[in-house]
Amino acid sequence: MRITIPTLLLDKDKAKRNIRRMADKAKRNSVRLRPHFKTHQSAQVGEWFREVGVEAITVSSVRMARYFANHGWKEIMVAFPVNVLEMESINELAGRIKLHLVAVNEDTVAVLANQLQHPVHLSLKIDTGYRRTGILATNYEELDSIMQQVQGQEKLLFEGFVVHDGHTYKQTDVDAIQTIHNTSVYQLQQLRDRYKSRFPNLQLSIGDTPSCSIIETLSGVDEIRPGNYVFYDLTQQRIGSCSFDDIAVCMACPVVAMHPERGEIILYGGSVHFSKDVLLQENGSTVYGRVVEFASNGWSAPQEGIEVVSLSQEHGVVKASPEQFSKYKIGDLMGVLPVHSCLTANLMQGYTTTDGAQLEHLTGLPQRELIF
Amino acid sequence: MRITIPTLLLDKDKAKRNIRRMADKAKRNSVRLRPHFKTHQSAQVGEWFREVGVEAITVSSVRMARYFANHGWKEIMVAFPVNVLEMESINELAGRIKLHLVAVNEDTVAVLANQLQHPVHLSLKIDTGYRRTGILATNYEELDSIMQQVQGQEKLLFEGFVVHDGHTYKQTDVDAIQTIHNTSVYQLQQLRDRYKSRFPNLQLSIGDTPSCSIIETLSGVDEIRPGNYVFYDLTQQRIGSCSFDDIAVCMACPVVAMHPERGEIILYGGSVHFSKDVLLQENGSTVYGRVVEFASNGWSAPQEGIEVVSLSQEHGVVKASPEQFSKYKIGDLMGVLPVHSCLTANLMQGYTTTDGAQLEHLTGLPQRELIF
Repeated sequence: MRITIPTLLLDKDKAKRNIRRMADKAKRNSVRLRPHFKTHQSAQVGEWFREVGVEAITVSSVRMARYFANHGWKEIMVAFPVNVLEMESINELAGRIKLHLVAVNEDTVAVLANQLQHPVHLSLKIDTGYRRTGILATNYEELDSIMQQVQGQEKLLFEGFVVHDGHTYKQTDVDAIQTIHNTSVYQLQQLRDRYKSRFPNLQLSIGDTPSCSIIETLSGVDEIRPGNYVFYDLTQQRIGSCSFDDIAVCMACPVVAMHPERGEIILYGGSVHFSKDVLLQENGSTVYGRVVEFASNGWSAPQEGIEVVSLSQEHGVVKASPEQFSKYKIGDLMGVLPVHSCLTANLMQGYTTTDGAQLEHLTGLPQRELIF
Repeated sequence: MRITIPTLLLDKDKAKRNIRRMADKAKRNSVRLRPHFKTHQSAQVGEWFREVGVEAITVSSVRMARYFANHGWKEIMVAFPVNVLEMESINELAGRIKLHLVAVNEDTVAVLANQLQHPVHLSLKIDTGYRRTGILATNYEELDSIMQQVQGQEKLLFEGFVVHDGHTYKQTDVDAIQTIHNTSVYQLQQLRDRYKSRFPNLQLSIGDTPSCSIIETLSGVDEIRPGNYVFYDLTQQRIGSCSFDDIAVCMACPVVAMHPERGEIILYGGSVHFSKDVLLQENGSTVYGRVVEFASNGWSAPQEGIEVVSLSQEHGVVKASPEQFSKYKIGDLMGVLPVHSCLTANLMQGYTTTDGAQLEHLTGLPQRELIF
């Protein structure tokens, strides 16, 4: 394998270990695992989940649902508020797979009730504290009204409530994440109590990778939908969801310039490769990536005294101690762990496994195959 | 034209007006215009530059050079430090077009001298203050040595010095940008004086869109290489390079949720569409996009009291005053001017013109056509 341009490497063993660990945890907790595929967006990586028994998945767009449906997945939840402008694609998909949709308000449910041509499973997104979107768990007026509306609908098979506790991403403390999780579960159970007489099989589902990774006892819910855990990244390591050794993707970037006078190394690898997500470190500094050393068939832990401190469109700027600086020369490849693996994979449009295979990513496919 | 998912709209008239204005300015100043194509990365948009007489272009990667070479461009500068790992692609390209490369150090020049199979034009990148990369204008030791090395090389046709004053992007004041420009020109001319006896046709080239847009008299250099001006964006408007009316691209994003209790509207449109570049506004707030209203065949100026305040992978959060909030409902399309048009176009992988045509972007093409 000869790498000449910025390349996203994938350690299959680490990814498979991450996949298995979460599957084992779900089994141990007797919760259904419906993994989110928005992080990898790859048909081949998806296959690795089948090996641990996964049959139902989560995605974040209709386009992504269509892609995985075309690769044999028969049960897919689109965990993004239904976009009513896409009814044509939704109807096409609902005709061929078990499609789950997520609504966040009454108006959308009304459009679905009116325009669906095939039955879909419907969950309501509940806001238990993140405050991005979702129906507030205490907004009984809207909830009662929607529950009234869905009851008896032939095409809307009500499933239950889903939550995404995105505010766990701002935490770095197990207790804080446990508290967020407990608060969500409490609110979800209140809702289940309110509606269980009419919907006895009402399902409760949570989704964030930090909670699912960090909390040992995932009681009180029926389903978990984490996604990032397949690769993890520096953000998840900082939160405490994983160790550095669990991070399954690494950028390989050519060294194109050296500036000894200021201890800076210039990489071919910028914001069009990494994305611009930044990580606040414990010492208060911000980094765009941590540097590792390549070993046979993999890479080391992040090195001290060297990190990516700035990105422009195609350039990455690495600050290095004299000792680290002396290890590199022009034409070398530098290994960089990404801050946010979802966005890096989305930009890189594909993977090279450490054993030399090329794996696809949805964004690397021709547009004409993606637009309905 | 029916838009159902996040879509990047392109106003062809505005882009062509921007293209013509810069061409006229170059002519008025008797400087050669070698526009940078990294912003649009589109064969069709590239054709609009031919209409104003452009024959030589700038790109930021070998891959981009290959793409435009495949679309009939015969003279291309890769304005990124030569990546010596790509010698195979470089040799292939140099065999079929007039290829200009940019080096930032002696080691790279030595590799080129050793491995080039066809003549290429070589410029040295000079750092006149940005401090990203380039040879310091006062580093005579390295410069003398490289100039010695290139003299008499058959395959390295020395052209001159190029500068990218990226630090103008941090300015919002005409005088500051003029000062940066003057400082660069002064340093470049010192270098020309030093080497002109040996290289009488030595060319001086500058590249940033702010200087080229804002400064009326571009004297003292032979060439300008701006790129972002084809579309401009909120960042350039904030710097003073353009008016809002010059911004030629606009995202159209479906409204998927409304939160009246906190004046927030949720868009289908997130960091995988916009990128995560952020703009610091005059009032100290940060935004990820400004909201416009669609009109027949175009869009308005940014509205007051409504802006994109946060992005996650697929969601955009818009904060709106009660008056602005009341204008939208679920299923509407909201227009959003991007903070950084280069990165948004790179993610969106294509354009829909306001008159309904689909234009391609390099990143939307199948991978197999891109890798050499």
